[in-house]
Order: sequence, then structure tokens, then C-alpha cells
Amino acid sequence: MPGNSFGQTFRITTAGESHGPANVVIIDGCPAGLALTEDDFLIDMARRRPGQSHIVSQRQEDDRVEVLSGTYQGKTTGTSIALLVRNEDARPKDYAGLQDVYRPGHADATFDAKYRLRDPRGGGRASARETVARVAAGVVAKNMIAHLNHIEIVGCVAQIGNILAALPSPDILRVDDVERLTDGSANIVRCPDHAAAAKMIELIDQVRKDRDSIGGVAHFVARNVPSGLGEPVFDKLKADLAKALFSLPAVMGVEMGSGFASATMRGSEQNDLFVPSASGLHTSTNHHGGTLGGITTGMPLVMRVAVKPTSSIPRVQTTVDSHGDTADLRVTGRHDPCLLPRFVPIGEAMIAIVLADHLLRQRNAKLVDEVR
Amino acid sequence: MPGNSFGQTFRITTAGESHGPANVVIIDGCPAGLALTEDDFLIDMARRRPGQSHIVSQRQEDDRVEVLSGTYQGKTTGTSIALLVRNEDARPKDYAGLQDVYRPGHADATFDAKYRLRDPRGGGRASARETVARVAAGVVAKNMIAHLNHIEIVGCVAQIGNILAALPSPDILRVDDVERLTDGSANIVRCPDHAAAAKMIELIDQVRKDRDSIGGVAHFVARNVPSGLGEPVFDKLKADLAKALFSLPAVMGVEMGSGFASATMRGSEQNDLFVPSASGLHTSTNHHGGTLGGITTGMPLVMRVAVKPTSSIPRVQTTVDSHGDTADLRVTGRHDPCLLPRFVPIGEAMIAIVLADHLLRQRNAKLVDEVR
Amino acid sequence: MPGNSFGQTFRITTAGESHGPANVVIIDGCPAGLALTEDDFLIDMARRRPGQSHIVSQRQEDDRVEVLSGTYQGKTTGTSIALLVRNEDARPKDYAGLQDVYRPGHADATFDAKYRLRDPRGGGRASARETVARVAAGVVAKNMIAHLNHIEIVGCVAQIGNILAALPSPDILRVDDVERLTDGSANIVRCPDHAAAAKMIELIDQVRKDRDSIGGVAHFVARNVPSGLGEPVFDKLKADLAKALFSLPAVMGVEMGSGFASATMRGSEQNDLFVPSASGLHTSTNHHGGTLGGITTGMPLVMRVAVKPTSSIPRVQTTVDSHGDTADLRVTGRHDPCLLPRFVPIGEAMIAIVLADHLLRQRNAKLVDEVR
Amino acid sequence: MPGNSFGQTFRITTAGESHGPANVVIIDGCPAGLALTEDDFLIDMARRRPGQSHIVSQRQEDDRVEVLSGTYQGKTTGTSIALLVRNEDARPKDYAGLQDVYRPGHADATFDAKYRLRDPRGGGRASARETVARVAAGVVAKNMIAHLNHIEIVGCVAQIGNILAALPSPDILRVDDVERLTDGSANIVRCPDHAAAAKMIELIDQVRKDRDSIGGVAHFVARNVPSGLGEPVFDKLKADLAKALFSLPAVMGVEMGSGFASATMRGSEQNDLFVPSASGLHTSTNHHGGTLGGITTGMPLVMRVAVKPTSSIPRVQTTVDSHGDTADLRVTGRHDPCLLPRFVPIGEAMIAIVLADHLLRQRNAKLVDEVR
Repeated sequence: MPGNSFGQTFRITTAGESHGPANVVIIDGCPAGLALTEDDFLIDMARRRPGQSHIVSQRQEDDRVEVLSGTYQGKTTGTSIALLVRNEDARPKDYAGLQDVYRPGHADATFDAKYRLRDPRGGGRASARETVARVAAGVVAKNMIAHLNHIEIVGCVAQIGNILAALPSPDILRVDDVERLTDGSANIVRCPDHAAAAKMIELIDQVRKDRDSIGGVAHFVARNVPSGLGEPVFDKLKADLAKALFSLPAVMGVEMGSGFASATMRGSEQNDLFVPSASGLHTSTNHHGGTLGGITTGMPLVMRVAVKPTSSIPRVQTTVDSHGDTADLRVTGRHDPCLLPRFVPIGEAMIAIVLADHLLRQRNAKLVDEVR
Repeated sequence: MPGNSFGQTFRITTAGESHGPANVVIIDGCPAGLALTEDDFLIDMARRRPGQSHIVSQRQEDDRVEVLSGTYQGKTTGTSIALLVRNEDARPKDYAGLQDVYRPGHADATFDAKYRLRDPRGGGRASARETVARVAAGVVAKNMIAHLNHIEIVGCVAQIGNILAALPSPDILRVDDVERLTDGSANIVRCPDHAAAAKMIELIDQVRKDRDSIGGVAHFVARNVPSGLGEPVFDKLKADLAKALFSLPAVMGVEMGSGFASATMRGSEQNDLFVPSASGLHTSTNHHGGTLGGITTGMPLVMRVAVKPTSSIPRVQTTVDSHGDTADLRVTGRHDPCLLPRFVPIGEAMIAIVLADHLLRQRNAKLVDEVR
Repeated sequence: MPGNSFGQTFRITTAGESHGPANVVIIDGCPAGLALTEDDFLIDMARRRPGQSHIVSQRQEDDRVEVLSGTYQGKTTGTSIALLVRNEDARPKDYAGLQDVYRPGHADATFDAKYRLRDPRGGGRASARETVARVAAGVVAKNMIAHLNHIEIVGCVAQIGNILAALPSPDILRVDDVERLTDGSANIVRCPDHAAAAKMIELIDQVRKDRDSIGGVAHFVARNVPSGLGEPVFDKLKADLAKALFSLPAVMGVEMGSGFASATMRGSEQNDLFVPSASGLHTSTNHHGGTLGGITTGMPLVMRVAVKPTSSIPRVQTTVDSHGDTADLRVTGRHDPCLLPRFVPIGEAMIAIVLADHLLRQRNAKLVDEVR
Repeated sequence: MPGNSFGQTFRITTAGESHGPANVVIIDGCPAGLALTEDDFLIDMARRRPGQSHIVSQRQEDDRVEVLSGTYQGKTTGTSIALLVRNEDARPKDYAGLQDVYRPGHADATFDAKYRLRDPRGGGRASARETVARVAAGVVAKNMIAHLNHIEIVGCVAQIGNILAALPSPDILRVDDVERLTDGSANIVRCPDHAAAAKMIELIDQVRKDRDSIGGVAHFVARNVPSGLGEPVFDKLKADLAKALFSLPAVMGVEMGSGFASATMRGSEQNDLFVPSASGLHTSTNHHGGTLGGITTGMPLVMRVAVKPTSSIPRVQTTVDSHGDTADLRVTGRHDPCLLPRFVPIGEAMIAIVLADHLLRQRNAKLVDEVR
């Protein structure tokens, strides 16, 4: 049973290597009638694109999305949607020496263990290049959930190394503060605490000079999510969100709501009390992070994701080759000294896909649905 | 698309409410030829059972597993295996007043939002009672992965409230230290740091007296896991493990390897260096927690799981009823003041099911498999 | 990837052997709010039951369905529904000599080829006993599609041996004529052409006396099926119906609409012309059998199913044993001389499950659905 | 739950419209190590191609397959394989008048019923153009099953209109006789009874002159299929084959082995007797068509498929428009007067995909598999 599909009702299937001809995604299950054109992809593809600032990988990709099927006259038709993104700035020669040497922290060794052969060019399928297909699919998902429920997903950087940002509450975290500084220029590190953002950029510059990399934490909020989403007992919304986020390269941890802080809490602290509200369920606090019993309450979804430092560092490391012999290695190629800035749109895409899937799945929870 | 199945190739489907007649699991995809009898279930069912010590729920359940199909003369036949566990000490009357009042931290409100009607007896399907079916299925999974690869899964309690245990390394964490104290008596809190264990029990006793509950962290290790397990790009092993654990009641966070600590690490620290080894891949450290690129390296899998304090606390809380009006509520019924001791076998079961599934899936990674 | 589940959104998973303790089905995805009690199962279980007349197997089974989960106060709750049917008149000793000898036309040899071991008692999982779980699930499906769309499924026997029935048109085929003769007594062969029915019974009596068995054709109609059901390009409604019917024991052929007769037709004959109608799509003829492009038109679904003669015949046949050596065999046990009368409710159940699944799937074809 | 994927372990997902930019298929689950280059697609794409002879559609398509991912240095890597086929001779203007008028026998009306909007150009997704993706995927499946088990699939035309071919036995049906006449020229109708073939061509020429079309029956054989394939109780091999074939456009009936002729047979005739054989299971006759209990015996698989006459006929027909009003219609565009010659490679592709899927699924039937 293969692993290149995600979602049940809004279902994506991806293919593509880092230095092959193209990346592709087929979206199956998008309902008919959704407005969708190739221009819709521009913003998120640009947010994910390498080369967008001096603190990310300098690979230059246009990442234009071609819609091959599933739309007619600017609307989805209900048939499967194929999206194609060509690889343009591939430099497979950068990886010439890596066929037989296992880069530390990389999947070279495990792909060999799994498949016995692999495409060594830029990590092949194990490269974060594959996330281009996820972000493309995420645009369709975002369009759909915005259209149906005005759902808004906002991601940002909460921590890089030891620099912690002070974040606004989930109700008021604004995309503008994540994408732009107060002077209107690009917030290249995507941290809404602009003072912390400056320090983060400094730190990233420093680790790059040190031929090193640095980890961090991303923070995600989803607002206007209706109550009732999530399918017990295995496809709880928190479970599918955790899978979606852990399926991304470099993710080492995921928290919902109060997360690991719950370990030190008493029930009388942790329990969010329900309070009367004109607009459905409402709790006075949001330690639960938006789901109870794995089903959404209608309160904002709040997630935190730990991202490890980039494994590719341009310094000599000791490792083994495919014969098990010791080898020294200096990784070449173009890499991000810190993954967090580009992780933001990628994480958002996966959250959008999960919500799109569960919005559709929820249509079948009741025999007759007066709300539709 | 419903949510009561988990796994692709080794696939479980469960049904059952807290105070209905029974819980059932059908395991589909267990290969023919595995030794399996009803006695195999005794140990893990006893480890999960309420009433096993004074620090857990006092509901008394025998939890005998009846094998309804799929075995012949003590071996699996390859056909689907149905396991039945009757509910015996159900006391639906304990929940008489809860039909219309939403317990804080519980799924009453979200089930109503989702389905418009629900079984209020003990939380119905949202009760942790459903994990009895997971543990039963986990026994079959554990048998299979032990038989095929000598895989060993050991869970324990790492933290309760502010009490942190000093844990042995993943290579030497022993089931005996988790289940028994040095005097041979039961380690009722399942923490291998026996000094910390004593303090944890004290804390749990205290919160119970306070009519409150307390959270904690569970720690899991899987050893002898062969390299190569995990299906990029969505069904990475870490992704399926995270989903499995997040699908459990009360889970708020999951970490693999260095987890959230990765945020402050540099690549030169985080990268585990490969070293020559007679037995396949080996790294000098294990920050990666057993997977790279979502595929197992062969190093021990290491996971940590944050579990929130029990939502049911026997004190008056303010909440709303199903009409949205304010109501005061004192939850009755029999509940655990701390979920962690019984969480250990439940988490192990889910990890075992994921590994059973991926061991079988890995059989199809290569065209010809000389290793089988 | 195991094979004991069917359906995507309304999904059933079954388990159970012919002479094991019980058969079980878990239905996942039945929406909340459907009226369902244990009495609902009585009629179809009686129609499927062995021992119902002198022309079927004389095994005596009460086939009472126990609802283990998924309902509360007589309504489905949206959680998974487990149904249990105990085996009561199992006589495993009847099969004592069959462990090592392969019955002609049976799955003994292929189960051994597949799994290397098998439960020989009454064919184990390969026995038609497993259809008891399908019929139980079919009752829930029938209830749901009747409630939502007044869909009515009527099956009957169209042919046994060379005796062909004259069937009423799909619009007017009545359950009463299938289940009752004009004098009110049971129509034990389920053929609505009562003159043909008498001859069929005679033929079945004859083949039983001859220690032989006989094949036939079943005919199925589904009315009030809304237009729009079916999911191109692989899960066309005709494709899922064909799979559902071919998954049943002894089925050798399936036709939709004009079926094999289409081979000799010209397009100008085969094409059903659309005609104006007050109630949606309507065609002047129904060669298409209810679907175009794999999607329902709203015209009645019409299917024919070829069922082979029972493989178990109480006469000596030459075969081989599990070592490949020649052996003579006389099959014992209790068997139907003709499968058709009991096939009718079984085929109806599978059709109902397909329609229940596709009715729910269709809810997600459009972004906004004004019709619900 | 969408319908554009097929197969479980060897899984294909397709997208593409008749007159959109391209058709795409992603194959997920093809094991690593299979030789595969773009040249491998040439033969079957040419066999399926329109314009290949004067008795098929005159649309001119090169149908070159571009491999976008999943291979490295001429071998599959185990990652998902994306195949792209551009549409080149699209003439959407041919369909200008068809937006609002429902062609008899076509899916225009049902797509409108399902999705409320549709791509009218050449039938959009409902066109047989989508089978180009199936045939491309079928090439990979054929390569795999030939490599692993020397499985050989041979399809041919058995009947067109009232002209019935005398077919060689399944053991000796040769591709050469299907593809070439004795003089070495192309057997454009793909009937191995060359005398019948000549009459069939004559008939097809006649119906085209009559502005009409004609149906027929295709016959398929699969040889060297190992015993043990098929997953009871729902994914029996016969069930998955039936679904695969019924998912194809214009298919109205499917038979396995003796098919509808079984209706008139007695058990003593129908039962194929097992006979000793050096090479596994063997039966003296093959009425069962290659499966018992839905699992392969090792005898040749034998299937027959009824294909209706092309719905598009270039004569005036009376129909309705999307408002339900009567309209006269003369279908334009380029169409096959008989679908059978091009159906042969398409049916083979679907059978190959089913066998590839089940060959991989069978690897998990037993705990330890000594045969691999």
C-alpha cells in the first residue's frame, strides 16, 4: 500500500523528484463549482519559492502551476484536477559525489535500505522540493474552505534557536503582520513579533556564516472552523492534523492547544469552561486548541510544530558510505540555513487540505442536514 | 468517509460504546500462520484494565477477549479476525443527568455538534472505553512483529505534573522496571525511576483528594525495528505514529527523538553521524528518534506523548447545557485521577499496530526481495 | 491490503467462518438519525435463512442479529454499528474427511494455495455462510436508502436450468409476486412467473434426487434511484455494482441493461432517446439499464446475474488431495441443490450497500447543494 | 470519496479531459527495480491510438508518454510514477452546439445531473480519451507481471454484431494472430479467426456507411497467473476484474469462465475436476475461468466482455436539451463506428493492473513466504 496520497474525500496524490522533469499533484474529490484559475496559485507559490530572500535557498524556480484538467471556464467541474510544476533550475551535477555517501540527517541511507536503489540528485523524492505539489494543492483547499466557511489559516514563526517571539492571540494574528513589516517591506522571516524577527534574521545570518543551520518552531491558527469536524475514533481532527504536519520534512514535534504544558496542569486548570455565546459553542479559555474528543468546537485551532535545523550543512562531517565504510563528506548544493520561513506556507497548505477533507466528510455525519 | 478504521495492510476497524453491550474489533490483513490464542490477550488487557490499582478508575471489568473468527487450531488463517469484549460493569445510571449538560473538556458538546444526537451513557463512543478494542488488536500486532523481527515496544511514564523521571537509555529500558518494583510488587504508576514513581503516586493521591486530576508525559521506545519502514511522502513512519498517538483520548502533543528541543539546536548538533556497524545502519547519537526522511534507520524509535489531566473531575464546574444556557455540573461516574499509568499499554498497542502495518507494507517496496 | 471491507463512505467490514462461533459485520459511515432496531433484521434474515423450504439447505439457523453498538434509543448515532450473528447449527464433524481432499468447484485448493493453511469446517470463510453478515448490513442500507429517497430494490429468479421466466417490466415488478403465490403461500423459488416457478421447483426436486445441482439467473431492479449517482472514472455505479455482485459466491456473469444482447445491436437501436418528463431525465426505452457514463439517469437499474450450480453435490467425484494425488470424494454436509432462491435477498443486500454508499458520496459532488 | 483511483497496492490515479491540455496518471506502489523507459509505451499506445486504421476514429494523436517521475537510470525507484500524455489533435469547436443538448446514449445528461456543470468539449472526462492514461499505466503493470511471473495477457475480438469468431483455446491464443494476418499485414479488427475478421471489417464498413455503429464482444485470456491471487470476501479476483472491466466506457456485461452458460448447467457438468499435475493445481476442464472462491487456481483466466455500439452516430436523433425540451441532434466529431478493435488493448490494460495489484497484495497472505 503506497504512501503518496493524503486525505479521504478531498484527496491528493503527488509525484516528482527534486531534479526530475516536474512535480505533479492530482486532486480528487474537489466539488464542482469552485472558482479556480492559474493566477490563484501565484501568492502561495511565491511564499514557498526558494530564492525569495537572502535567508533561504538560492535555487531559482518560477514554480508556475499549469492546470491540466478538472476546470472549465474558470470553475472546477468535479473531475480530478491535475496540477503540473516543472523543475527549471535543477542542477543534478551538484550531487555527483553523493551517490554512495550517506549525508548525516538525510534520507539517503534509509531510501537505500527501503528501495535498494534511489535517485541521488538532490535527495530525489526525499527533497523538500516535493512540497511544491502540496502547496499547489493547498491553494485549491484554501479556496474551497474560504468559499464554504470563510475559514482562514494563518501561520507564522514562533521561535528560532533561543529567540522566542511574543505572539498575538489566535483571534487576532494577522497575515499582514506575518508577511509585511510595518514599513511595508517583506517580513522575510515571517515572525509577527517584529523585534524578535530582526534578531532571528541576525541569527540565521550568523549560522550561515558558521556553515551551520538552526531549528525553530512554527505556529498555526485556523479561524472560523465550524464545530463538528473530525471523525472518531481514528480520524480525529487532531490526529489527521498531526499526521499532515509530521508528514513534512524535518518536523520533530506537534502540539495542539496547551500541548506539553498540559503535563503539569490539573484538570481544574486545563478544562476550558463553556460559556453562553450567540454563535455556537464558546469556551472562556482555549487550552484544548480547538478540538474535544477529536472534533472541532468552533474555537480557533492552535498548533505548534517543531522543525529541526537543516541537515545539509556546508562543512565536513564524518559518515559512512553505502558499503558501511567511514567517509568524510561536505554537502554541496543550495540549502536553507533555517527552514522556518518557507515552512509557514507549507504547513498552512497541509492544514488547509485536512480541513477541506473534513468539511466534506462532515456532510455525511447526519441523515438529513438542515444546515447545508 | 468514516473514521473507525486504522492501518492499510494490517487494518483494524472498531466499534463499541462505554455502556453498550460490547466492544468489537475486526483485524483484516493479519497473515496466515501466526500463533494466537485467547490467553495471549490476558497480560495487556490486565495492564489496561480499570480497577487494577488504587490510583486508577474503580470500574471493574474482566475484559476477557473472545476470538470469533480468523483462527483455526491456534493459528491465524489469513481471514479477518473478530475480537469481542463484553461490557460488564456498565452503570449507565451514573450519567442520568448528563444528557443535556456539556461536561467541560469532554466531547459531549462536539458530538452533539457533529451528529445532533448521541449516546450520553459514560460518553458513549467518546469514552476511553473504546481503547479496549485497540489494546486487543495491539496484542495481535505485538505477536506478529515479535515473531517476524523480534520487535520490542516498551512504554513508561516519564512525567506526572512537575515530577520528572530519570529514564534509562532506549537501549536498556526494561519492561520489568516498568511493571515491577525492586521488591517484586506492581509498579502501579509504570515509571522506571522508582524514586520518582513514589512521588508520582503521592501526587496522584493528593489530586484525587483535591477532587482534581493531573497530566503527564508518556515515553515509548521500539527496538529491533528494521531499517526501511515508512512510506513517503505522506505515510512516513513518524506521520503514522503521530496520527496513531494523537488519535488517543487526551493526547495534546507528540515528539519524535529530540522533538521540541530541536528548535534550539544547530545542524551540527542535531545531525546524528553514521558510524560503521556490523548490523546495518548505526548512528553515534539518536536525536532523529529512529527515522530519517520518515523511514526507519534501525536505531530505536523514541517518542514522547503529552497527556492532559482527566477532564472528569468530581467538583462543581460552570458550563452550558445543550440549549446554550449556563449550568452548574458535578461529574459523577468512576474516573482516573491521572491517565498516565493506563495510557502506557494503550500507547504501546497503537505503536505496535503502526509497525505491523508498515512491516507488511515494506514487503512491496522492492521488485524482488532477497531478504524474506 | 486486505479484502474484507466494501464501500467507501457507507463501509462494511465482515468476519466469520461457517462453523466458527459467529459472523460479525461493522458498518462504518451510517449517518446519525436513522431508525434501527433488532426487529428490522427479521424479514431479510428469514429470506436468506437455510431451512426455509424443502428446496434449500436444511441447516437450521435462527440467525438473530444482535446490535452491539452504534444505536441509542432506536436510532443510529453516527458511530460504527457492530452486528453479531452467532452460528448455532454448526456441525464441523460433517467435514472431518475434507482437510486434505480438494472438493471440485470449491475453494479448498485455492485457500491452501493462498494461505497454506485453512479452516476446513464447512469451507470456513469460503462458505456462503459469510453472506449472513452482508444481508444484515444490507438491512441497514435498505432502511437508509428507503428513508432518504424511497429507493426500492426487487430481486427475483429469472431462469433455472432451461426454464426461463416471463418477467414483468422493471416498473411493475412487485415484491409480493416474488415472495408470495396467488394463494398467499410462500413463493419458495422467488420467481414472479408463477407457472415457471412451478416448473423450476420440479426441476430442483429432480436434480436433488439425481444427487446433482443446477444453475440459474437472478434478475434485479432498483427503482427511485436519483440521477447523478456514480463516481467516474473507476467507481462508476455499474462498476461498483458489478464488483458487489461478482464478490458473491458462485457468480459467473453480470449484465446491465441490454447486456450481452448489445453485441448484436446497432447504435440506432441501442441508444435510448431522451424524452421530456416532469420528473427529471426520462428515456423512451431502457437498454442502458439505468446508468450512462457510469452515472444513474434516474431510470430503473436493471441487472442480471448468472449463478453457477452448487459445487457440493452428494455423489462421488474424482479429485486430488493436498499432496497432488488422485482421490475419490463424496461431499457430505447440508447444501442447496440450487442457489437461486436464497441468492435473491443476498444480491439485493449488495445492491443496497452500493446505493447507500453512492448516495452519500454524491453529497460531495457539488460545492453547494440546493437540493438537500 | 472520489472515484479516480483504482487498485490498492499497485494504485493508479488518473486525470484529464478529451479536449483539455493533457491526460495524466500517477502510479503509486510500483516496486523499485523494474526496468522502464519511455519506449516501453510505444506499442500499446499505438494499439490504442485513434487513426490507426480506416475502421476507427480518425482523430490523429501521437500519444507519446512522458515519464515525469519515479524512475532513475531506466529503473523504477519505488516512488510514485507520473506519466503525461498531451492532447494534440483536440478540436473543441466540433462540440460547439452540444453544451445544452443531451446526446442519446451519452453521459452529458448524467454529468449535468451529478455536477450541475460540465466540460462539453468531446464529452470531457466522460470521453474514452481518458483510457489513454489507463493504457499507459497498463504498460507498467504488464512489465511488472511479466517480469515477476511471466504473466501474459491476450485480448481479441470474439464477436461483432452477429458475426461470431471461432477462437483458439486459452492455452494457445497468440498475440501474433490477433495483431497480424497471415500475410503479415495488420489485423485491424483484432479477431484471430481471420475469416470472421474479414466479415467483421465488411460489417463495420457497412454500418459506417449507414451512419450507424455496431456492438460486439471482446475475449481476454491471462496465462501463467500463479494460484493464490484474490482477497476474499469482497476483493475476490473475479470481483476486481469485473469492476475493472465495467469501469470502461460502453461495457454492458462481463462473464468469467462459462458465464451465463452456467445457468443451464448441472453441478456434475460445471465442476472442473482436479487432476494430478507437476506444476501445481490443474483441472481437466476450465468452466471456472481461472478462479475458485475468487482466488486463482493457476488455470488461465478467461473473460468475455459485452461492448455496446458507439453512442455517437452521425444521424439525426430526437432528444432533449438541458431545459428538458425536445431537440433534434446530429452528433459531429470523429468517432469509431465500432469500439471493439481499440477496446482490446484497453481491456488488457485494466486486467494487467488488477493482476499487478493482486500479485503484490498476495505477498502478505502468509506470515513467512518461502517462495519469494
